[in-house]
Amino acid sequence: MKRYASVITLKPDAILAYKQLHAHTWKQVLAKITECNIRNYSIYLYGNTLFSYFEYVGDDYEADMAKMAEDEVTQAWWSVCKPLQIPVSEAKPGEWWHDIEEVFHLD
Amino acid sequence: MKRYASVITLKPDAILAYKQLHAHTWKQVLAKITECNIRNYSIYLYGNTLFSYFEYVGDDYEADMAKMAEDEVTQAWWSVCKPLQIPVSEAKPGEWWHDIEEVFHLD
Repeated sequence: MKRYASVITLKPDAILAYKQLHAHTWKQVLAKITECNIRNYSIYLYGNTLFSYFEYVGDDYEADMAKMAEDEVTQAWWSVCKPLQIPVSEAKPGEWWHDIEEVFHLD
Repeated sequence: MKRYASVITLKPDAILAYKQLHAHTWKQVLAKITECNIRNYSIYLYGNTLFSYFEYVGDDYEADMAKMAEDEVTQAWWSVCKPLQIPVSEAKPGEWWHDIEEVFHLD
């Protein structure tokens, strides 16, 4: 199992829409996340910053992320979520959510 | 099980010290955390902001946190960690790490 944490910001006027969307996440999106070997996935909000944490239990993360990106319903989900978000300034080219560094872990 | 996530900032010149401390966390501190029913505890760093995530598996969080606070080694640990940290402006009176809101979760 590998843990991933990342950050992104929300446009200030998009907080309510983002929370409502995620309180009613589409079933096919949830199923695809699970199919792509992501578990224990949480998103937290601090100010305008979203903090994401999940655990990857598969053995080919790149392939699973590619599979997720090919899914039509997931693409439609992203098409409504992404306009609400702004990547942080530290995001690398091609990054949307920006991976952050683990400095401590205790099982 | 209940998930907790929270944030705090690091003084800009304290990042290396904080990372070194947590790469060598004292064994008694780790044991006390486990004894107090905290599991799967991670801390991530983004800029000067620390994000903490853990899962509480006991049935009396307040009592367990009080037990942790009574522990002499934990107190000594906090005495070296706290001077490196500055609570966020949103912290409530008495808060050190500031709890943040979960907006999404998928097991």
